[in-house]
Order: sequence, then C-alpha cells, then structure tokens
Amino acid sequence: MHIKDHNWMQIDQYLKQDDRVMLVLGACEQHGYLSLLTDVNIPMAIAEKAANQCGVLVAPPLNFGCAPFFLDYPGTISLRLHTYLDVVEDILRSLNGVGFRRVLILNGHGGNIPVKIHLVELLNELTDLRLRWYEWWTSDSVEKIAKKYDLVADHANWLEAFDFNIVADLPAETKPLPVPKVEILGKAASREAFGDGAYGGPYQVDPAIMNEILDACLADVLDLLKFD
Amino acid sequence: MHIKDHNWMQIDQYLKQDDRVMLVLGACEQHGYLSLLTDVNIPMAIAEKAANQCGVLVAPPLNFGCAPFFLDYPGTISLRLHTYLDVVEDILRSLNGVGFRRVLILNGHGGNIPVKIHLVELLNELTDLRLRWYEWWTSDSVEKIAKKYDLVADHANWLEAFDFNIVADLPAETKPLPVPKVEILGKAASREAFGDGAYGGPYQVDPAIMNEILDACLADVLDLLKFD
Amino acid sequence: MHIKDHNWMQIDQYLKQDDRVMLVLGACEQHGYLSLLTDVNIPMAIAEKAANQCGVLVAPPLNFGCAPFFLDYPGTISLRLHTYLDVVEDILRSLNGVGFRRVLILNGHGGNIPVKIHLVELLNELTDLRLRWYEWWTSDSVEKIAKKYDLVADHANWLEAFDFNIVADLPAETKPLPVPKVEILGKAASREAFGDGAYGGPYQVDPAIMNEILDACLADVLDLLKFD
Amino acid sequence: MHIKDHNWMQIDQYLKQDDRVMLVLGACEQHGYLSLLTDVNIPMAIAEKAANQCGVLVAPPLNFGCAPFFLDYPGTISLRLHTYLDVVEDILRSLNGVGFRRVLILNGHGGNIPVKIHLVELLNELTDLRLRWYEWWTSDSVEKIAKKYDLVADHANWLEAFDFNIVADLPAETKPLPVPKVEILGKAASREAFGDGAYGGPYQVDPAIMNEILDACLADVLDLLKFD
Amino acid sequence: MHIKDHNWMQIDQYLKQDDRVMLVLGACEQHGYLSLLTDVNIPMAIAEKAANQCGVLVAPPLNFGCAPFFLDYPGTISLRLHTYLDVVEDILRSLNGVGFRRVLILNGHGGNIPVKIHLVELLNELTDLRLRWYEWWTSDSVEKIAKKYDLVADHANWLEAFDFNIVADLPAETKPLPVPKVEILGKAASREAFGDGAYGGPYQVDPAIMNEILDACLADVLDLLKFD
Amino acid sequence: MHIKDHNWMQIDQYLKQDDRVMLVLGACEQHGYLSLLTDVNIPMAIAEKAANQCGVLVAPPLNFGCAPFFLDYPGTISLRLHTYLDVVEDILRSLNGVGFRRVLILNGHGGNIPVKIHLVELLNELTDLRLRWYEWWTSDSVEKIAKKYDLVADHANWLEAFDFNIVADLPAETKPLPVPKVEILGKAASREAFGDGAYGGPYQVDPAIMNEILDACLADVLDLLKFD
Repeated sequence: MHIKDHNWMQIDQYLKQDDRVMLVLGACEQHGYLSLLTDVNIPMAIAEKAANQCGVLVAPPLNFGCAPFFLDYPGTISLRLHTYLDVVEDILRSLNGVGFRRVLILNGHGGNIPVKIHLVELLNELTDLRLRWYEWWTSDSVEKIAKKYDLVADHANWLEAFDFNIVADLPAETKPLPVPKVEILGKAASREAFGDGAYGGPYQVDPAIMNEILDACLADVLDLLKFD
Repeated sequence: MHIKDHNWMQIDQYLKQDDRVMLVLGACEQHGYLSLLTDVNIPMAIAEKAANQCGVLVAPPLNFGCAPFFLDYPGTISLRLHTYLDVVEDILRSLNGVGFRRVLILNGHGGNIPVKIHLVELLNELTDLRLRWYEWWTSDSVEKIAKKYDLVADHANWLEAFDFNIVADLPAETKPLPVPKVEILGKAASREAFGDGAYGGPYQVDPAIMNEILDACLADVLDLLKFD
Repeated sequence: MHIKDHNWMQIDQYLKQDDRVMLVLGACEQHGYLSLLTDVNIPMAIAEKAANQCGVLVAPPLNFGCAPFFLDYPGTISLRLHTYLDVVEDILRSLNGVGFRRVLILNGHGGNIPVKIHLVELLNELTDLRLRWYEWWTSDSVEKIAKKYDLVADHANWLEAFDFNIVADLPAETKPLPVPKVEILGKAASREAFGDGAYGGPYQVDPAIMNEILDACLADVLDLLKFD
Repeated sequence: MHIKDHNWMQIDQYLKQDDRVMLVLGACEQHGYLSLLTDVNIPMAIAEKAANQCGVLVAPPLNFGCAPFFLDYPGTISLRLHTYLDVVEDILRSLNGVGFRRVLILNGHGGNIPVKIHLVELLNELTDLRLRWYEWWTSDSVEKIAKKYDLVADHANWLEAFDFNIVADLPAETKPLPVPKVEILGKAASREAFGDGAYGGPYQVDPAIMNEILDACLADVLDLLKFD
Repeated sequence: MHIKDHNWMQIDQYLKQDDRVMLVLGACEQHGYLSLLTDVNIPMAIAEKAANQCGVLVAPPLNFGCAPFFLDYPGTISLRLHTYLDVVEDILRSLNGVGFRRVLILNGHGGNIPVKIHLVELLNELTDLRLRWYEWWTSDSVEKIAKKYDLVADHANWLEAFDFNIVADLPAETKPLPVPKVEILGKAASREAFGDGAYGGPYQVDPAIMNEILDACLADVLDLLKFD
Repeated sequence: MHIKDHNWMQIDQYLKQDDRVMLVLGACEQHGYLSLLTDVNIPMAIAEKAANQCGVLVAPPLNFGCAPFFLDYPGTISLRLHTYLDVVEDILRSLNGVGFRRVLILNGHGGNIPVKIHLVELLNELTDLRLRWYEWWTSDSVEKIAKKYDLVADHANWLEAFDFNIVADLPAETKPLPVPKVEILGKAASREAFGDGAYGGPYQVDPAIMNEILDACLADVLDLLKFD
C-alpha cells in the first residue's frame, strides 16, 4: 500500500473510496550505534504494518528532518527549520490538492515537532483538511511498556534498537543517563555532551520487548486511522 | 534593571562587568478569563524579581508569539512561525553583536517552543553565545507544587491566575479537564473545543499557592543565571 | 484601555461597538542620554492619553524596530527590514481577522517608515481594512511648536527629552547640529558620526514646551481616530 | 560610459583606475500624462550627462520599483518590497564583488526609498563599500528652483514633464493640489484619489525651467561623485 | 553502501579514506502507467549498482521534486521551487560540513534541473566542494541506444519502463508523439494535453534494451565518480 | 510600441483592443568581447521588430538575470535565483492584474531558464493567464541556419556578434570548442575554464548570416504572438 507501488490511475481509484494517507516524517541523523536512518525506519515499519491491516496508503517518507544539534556527527543531514516548514507544507498541499482529506503524520524525530505549529497555520487555510500526528516514542503505549520493564526511553538507546536499525554490534554495558539540559546546545557542545550519541541507559533489551512496542504502536496507529 | 530604564552609555558600562541578559518571549493570546498578555506578564514578573536580586539586565519583552490555534478568539495576535524565528534571531544577534554572551530566555508561551530548534542553528554560527531557556510552567518546581496540592496545571486555568493577570471575575466552579488531543486543531476547531479558552480544572486557587509558585520560579531563575 | 488589561471576552464585547485600535510601533535603540525605549515610550504615552479620552483600544507595543545604523551602540536591538515587514503584517492580519477594521498606527521611529510601502501591499489584499499612520515628530503640530521656540527637532535631542525618557542627567550645553548626510552610513560610520548619539541642538528645554507637544499630539491623534 | 557599451575586459581596465559606478533605480508606474518610465528616464538622463563629464560608469537601470499604490493604473509594474530589497542587494553585491567600492545610487522613485534601510544592513556586512543616494526631486537644488518660480513639485506634474517624458499632449490647465493624506491608501483608493494620476499643480512649465533643473541636478551629481 | 546501513562512526571511518558520496534527487509524480516514484527508482538503481562496484556511499534519496505541471494527477507531490532550492542546499551543506568534498548528484527528474543554478551560488561560497550532476535520460549513452533502436525517449514511455517501475499492465499500442510545446502549461492544461501521462511512443520495449541502458548508465556513473 | 513610450491612459486604451505583451528577460553578464548587455540587446531587437510589424506592446526589459557562474568577470551583475523567481513573478502579476492575458516572454539568457518551473506554479494560480516562452538561440530556426553554415552556436561566439553588440574589435581567429562540462562550476572555476569568456568557435561571421538569424527569429516571434 505504498504510493511508490502505484501509478496515478490507481491512486485516482483509491480516492474514490478513501481519502486517508499516512505520511512518515523522519530524519537522517546520528543514532549512536544504530542506523543513521533510524527515525525513518521505525515509523515506516509501523506504517507498513498498519497499511497491511487496514489498506490505508503510505506516502514516500521524507528522509530528512531538523537535526542542527547533531551536525558534527558525520552522516547527519539537517534541513534548516525554515526549509523544513516549507517542505512539509508543500507535501500536504499536494496531497490535499488532489483529494486527500485525512492525513496521519507518523513523526519519527523530536527535532521535527516545531512543524506542528506551522501545520496549524496551514489548517487555518485548508479548511477541508484533517491532520493527526503520532509520535510513537512519546505515546502512552510506549511509556507504559518502558515503565513495566523499568526502562528509561531515550534517543538512540535500547528504545530504538529494533533489528532493522542494527548496523553494528551494540555495547553490552549500560550508559549513564545524561544530566538534564538547562542550556541550548550547538552542534559542538552536543557532540561533546553525548559522546557516542546515545542518551544513556542500556543499548539493547530483549527482542520480545521490542516486538511488544511495535505491536502497541501498530494498535495506536490503527486506532488513529479511524479519524473518529 | 530594565534596558528601558537605561541609555546606551549605561549599557556600555554594564557590559564591562557583566555579559548576561534576560529576554522574555511572550504572547498576546486568549487566556480565558485572564489577561490577553498573561504569557508576557508572568515571565516578566519573574524576571523583574530576579533582576532586583542579582542585577542582571532585562530586555524589553517580545509581546507577540505564535498562537495560530487561537486566532478566532478576539484579541489574539499571532506571528507566523517563519516570522517568529526571524524576530527572535534578530534580537539575539543584536544583543550578541554588542557583547552579550549569556542570555537567559524566559519563555511564557507553549507556541513559542519551536524557536528552540532555530536557536540551535544560530548557536552553530555564533559560537561565543550561550543560551539558556526557562519555561516556568513546565519546570520541575511548578510540577512539584501542583502535585503537592493535587492540581493539574494547564493553559488559562488556576496556574496562570496571578493577581496581575486577573482582569475580570473568575468562575468559582471547576471546568472539566479536556480530552487529550489526537488531532492538530485549526483555529475554528480550537475555539469549538476550548469554549471559554481555559483548558480545564479550577479557575483559581489560594493566592498563597500562587506566591509559592512565583518564589520557586524565582529561585530557578537565579540559579540558571549563574550559567555554571 | 490596553488590550493587556482585557480578556478575549471583553474584546469580543468591544468589537460589537467599535472596530478601531491603536498600534504603537517603536524601537529599542540608542537615544543619546535618553532611554533606549524612547521610541516606544512617546507614542505609548500619547496613545494612552487618547485612549483615556475616547475609549479606543491600545494594542501591546512592538518594542523592536529597524535600527541597523545604531547596532554599534550597546542596547540597540534591530530587526532586519525583511523581518520587520513580516511582523507588522502578521499583527495587522491578526487584528483584522477578528474584526478590527480601522487601525491607527502610532509610529515612534524613523527606521520603521519603510513598512508603509508593505502596508499598501497588505491593503491591496485586505480590502476591508483602513490604516492611518501617525508620526508625532514629523507632524505639522510639532513642527509648528519647534518653530515657535526656534528649535530644531531631531533624534535624541530636546525633542524626545520627556520626563519619562530621562534616565540620566542631561548635558546642559547645546550640541552642534550635524552636517547633512550625503552618504548612507553603516553602523560603524554612524557611531563615529554621532558620538553620544544625539543629532545636535539642546539636550533639553523647558518642560512646558514638552507638555505643549504632548497636548498637540494628543489632539492630532484624537482627530485621526475619527477616521472621517 | 554605459556598462552596456563595454565588454568585461574594458570594465576590468576601468577598475584599475576607478572604483566608482552610478546605479539608477527607477520604476515603471503611472505618471499621469507622462511616460510610464518617467522615473527611469530622469535619473538616467542626469547620470548620462554626468558620465559624459567625469567618465564614471553607469550600470544598466533597474526598470522596476515599488509602486503597489498604483497597481490599478494600467502599465504600472510593481515589485513587492521584499523582492525589491533583494534585487538591489544582489546588484550591489555583484558590483562590490568585482571591485566597485563607491556607488552613487540615483533613485528616481519615492516608493523605492525603503531600500535605504536595507542598504544599511548591507553596509554593516560589506565594510569596504561606500554608498551615496541621490533623489533629484527632493534635492535642495530642485526645491530652490521650485520656490524661485513659486511652483509646488509633485508626482507627475510639471516637475517631471521633461521633453523625453512627454508621450501625449499635456493639459493646459492647472490641477488643484491634493489634500494631504492621513491614510495609507491601497491601489483602489489611490486611483480614486488621484484620478488622472498627477498630484496637482500645472502639468507643464517653461522648458527653460526644466533645463535649469537638469543643470542643477547634474551639478549635484558631479559633486556627489567626488565621494569626499 | 547506503548511509542508511551505517551508523555515524562508520561514516566517520569512511571519511578518513574517501570524501565522495552519491545523492539521488527524485520526484513523486505521475508517470503514466508506471510507478509514481519512477524518478527515484531509476537513479537509485544506478547508484546502488555503482556503489556495489566502487564502494562510494549513497545518501538517502530526496523523494520529492518540482512537478507543478502534474499537480492535477493524483499521487503527484510537488515542492515549490523556492522550497526545493533550499532543501538541496541544506543537504549539501550538511554533507560538506562533516567532510564530504565530492558529490555526484544523480538527478532523476527534469523539473529539478533549475537547482543547478542555485548550486553554482552554493559553490561560490563552499569553495572546497566539487559537484557533478548526472541525468541518465539526457546522457549521450542513452541517446545513442535510443537512436540505435530507432526509439524516441520521453517522459513515462518505454524509456522508464524498467521492471522495478512496472506496477500495472502496460498498453501494447504506441501512443502518438506529442506536438512540441510552445506554451508554458499549468497543471490543468498539462493534464488535458498529456491524458494518461505518457508523452508518447511505445509504452515498453524488449527488456534487453532496458538492461543495455542500465549498463550504459552504470558505466557513466563509475566514470564520473573518478572526479578526474 | 514600448510601454516606456506610453502613459497609462494609452495602455488603458490598448487593453480594450488587445491583451498581449512581450517581456524581455535578459542579463548583464560577460560575453567575451561583446557587450555585457548582449542578452538584453538581442531579444529586445527582435521584440522591437515584431512590435513594429504587429503592434504588440513591449514591456521594459529586466536588465538583470541569473549568472552566478560569471561573477568573477567584471561587469557581470547576477540576481540570486530566489530573487529572480520573485522578480519575474511580480512583473507578471502586475501585468496580469490590469488585464494582460497573453504574455510572450523573450528570454535572452540560459541562466534564466529555471524560472520556467516557477511560472508553472504561477499559472496554477492565475488561471486566466497564458504564457509563451521563446529562446531565440535554441530555436529550430537558428539551429537550422547554424547547421546550414556548419557553425556551432554557443555563448559569446559568432552567434551573438550582432552589430549592436560589438563594442570592441573581435579576434579574427577561431577559438577551440570547449570540452563538455561534467562538473558544476563555481565562478572561479568558470573564469579559469572560459578565459576570454567566449565558449569557442569563430568570433564573428558574415553579417548576412546574422541578418538571416534575426529575420528567422522575427518570423518565429510573429508566429508565437498569434497565440493560437
């Protein structure tokens, strides 16, 4: 159910029966020992599972997000916030222009959250558009699971160590949790503060927990797609 | 210790001894029964108290923020997010250009938070600038007090009902707390959802609690101003 | 009659009877021995007097304007002209969007005048909006008074030395008037050219003259607010 | 001495001996009975005369300016102010980038004046650039001549009726002078207010006066080009 | 050799030995009976083959390009040209910022070509960056093959009908070639002019020809990656 | 039939009978031994001839285009691409706003071609506007003539050596044709690559060929102006 697996005539048919689409907003940024595309991979995995179950289309992912704080880590690619607001706006205008009316955004990256304010501005103009926004890692579902196993969820730690993100051996030890930030950090200060790039805690946990998380997120997304 | 109470020669003198300044980012937006300038008034009150104790300068407040969701409530004035990023950048460049090196931003409004990502981009360029960001209403201090009195802190409820924000009689009753949002709301949907504009809970509480909050925030700010 | 002393419901009531509002555009820039916020203070003082007499609302002031020429004087905060055009546009769109139809802009700062061209562009789009623009210091009224007392009105000299702008002792002597500029000056050249920041002439005059000026400006504003 | 009559090698030679250039900022906008390109033609005529006498280069004119107020008069072409600031900046950066250090801008159009503030921002960055700005119609020289003949100089009246601007018969009568504007006018209101587009006064005067004006402006420009 | 299959430490290692990277610029736009992501799929296929042979890294593709002419075909997602220039700039700045010095852009979409002018502007600033640009469909190699088989290469016809782009049965017939355009077409006119979206000619040809094309493009890319 | 030779009332009359206009987009950039304004002069010459024959209006030319690659050649003046898109948009909006419905753009400069994509975006909004785009040097007519005389047409060689562009003696010899570019060149690399600025081939040919070209282009333009 990817747009990439369709031609325009098939989308035309789809729109006669449905007006929903999922859009993945990701990032290409350092994730410690994990894949640089972690923030695309996770929401895309959830979206695909959801699409398989309920048949809602999945747009191609935006592979780049806002990660100015990690620009000193090789492989990080960051869009300026000004640019990012415009990109997401353009994608949504294009989708809305041909008849998509309900869009579920699956955001994979914290640095992208500012665009939500811009989307309110867009909704003030496109009054026939409905937007839902899902961040798997801040969901109640994930918080509950983390709590159940007494884990702290954070950037590039066990929380994101799904098998499809593992591109190298992960450290067996547990990294100390970071001191809460009271200062806005530029890229140099961030690299100094975060070292290997993970925010702390164990680098991986039992795969069963990871599956539990994916299942919970899938349930969330299927529910959100009801747009009730 | 307001910049407005100084001329440039006095600031010149100040900069020979100190390089810190406080900047209040506010908003002019509906706050239910409270003043439309609530989000300026609160951080400004805290900044003034802090300035009186430690002598750090306070810049003139930016009276406008990003509040596109409330544009259907008369009196709300919202800057587009693109505009807002530029305004805050310009203010900080001006301050940095004459020698301010440590700026504590006291943000009074949730809709302004996106600018933090833009400030990282600015810090990547202005490498001699340090920025701290304080949001009184999400601080551990305020959370603790709210918990102590079994109160839920939210927009335009008791939490912001400081005497200097009260411009009309406040309802005696308690408003039901809102259902968590799963949808991004445009201005029309927001007005429908929030009615009188308060997010729920009691409209006011014992003034002693309000003072307790101000005192706690003052302590936070004095600590942050150490820039250690 | 400040917006800050109202909540949105009160503004809603106001709009049922009136659609006028005053907006002060100021600046935070060097004014020689006078307050850095001189260009906010003066139009705000006039607006408040006018509001007291005729009941027209006063929006929160925009504390920052365009003053790139003074960026080498500590305490000056300048918005780029591009930014400034957007800020003023956003404020007016917000006001117009909820029903304000007649706005009197009280501009306190020469560097802000370029926005007038942008406002024409805005009026071409918002056809139910009327805008008036008042600059107290270039008014016929003030020119007449200056002439009467054989004074030359200029930046940061006696003309702006209202009691509420005096933050330090003013020199007793008279500064020579500047040579007319045939060159556009950057910030470094401006600081070299203007020294203490005043453009020349006496630093202060008889307070009775200052009151005469305020009274004349008040009369102007009350007349402009008739929007006939 | 037009850039258009040179190739790059000749400019290269020129720059070894001189670093000055004249830039004409004009407009394509209604001028009553006169040519739509009046605001290019006049400064270009002055620039050419000056070039002939002192050998300073003349850049190609920018034929378009900011005239949003006249967009309801056919033939008016207006650049948005945002656009205009960028165009003028780009031209000056290009000139400065290859070695021009002193630029005399001959502005022919009132609506272009806002760019002066932007040029200060540019000068703050390009510290080896000097800019002079000449507006023939607000010059002391022209004011003096107008006064001598008891004439009021204004848009599209006798003041601009040089022979090279005359494209149709001019009315013999004198148009009443306009009431001073207290309101910012959009394009529709401007057309209603200005009718045939001239601001009032006689449509033409003795050609000897026109020559006197050109001669005086030429003298001004030759003096300004000394950059002393 | 995808960035997505690496973590930042691995990219850090790579940069110690190589400073080259391939970037695919694509589009999500109608391609007649073929996949909406055709313009990503083709250059990505070539890039992957090249990476396998020479080990040069492949960045995540930009899935969206400029296709305003096809916005009436469902599934087309177009970035405004202004937005697009900024996105590509940001990606290249990020790559250059951590040490990539030679970038081969594999562009899959005609509407993206304007960015080349913007890249010259970027090169004027980032003087240690080298950029090569490859468009497979306008290459001499492909032109030669098309000529050999007496085929006309055009949008969404046989030329792009690689197996990985086929998402539906392709028509067996040959579509008449279009009349050359003398007019710039908006989206409505484009849809009317192009009907099913293919520009004409056969919809598919012998798979051997398609392989011949891929092989030729691979050879081109391997050669370009030498950066000699 | 230049707009500059008309006043607004005459344009008003014209629009009652016709809604066509020609717009010349040029450039001020190095052209080897030829005039820096070559790219304005040629299309302007064609436009004037066409206007004389069919009476269609000619707007004032935009004297500046995008030429970032030649910014190291003195006399080149380049607008940033972002700026350029906005300028051309503004000109067309102004023309369309008063009733021009069919615009023939005569583009004289390769670096301006990117604006065509932006014009599609404009056409998507201004649905009563028709735009045609003519580039004389890539026309079939010119290609045919070049072929007939066995000449290769390129930047600043014989192809542009019309008498009105000749500002210095032209070399008698033939310059070797350049190696095709596989790399995007910044301004320094361009100057190194192109030396005197011509791209190669003879610097001039028999004037009869030049007249043949002008005649062919004139015929093209007259045909395009039919807008059938």
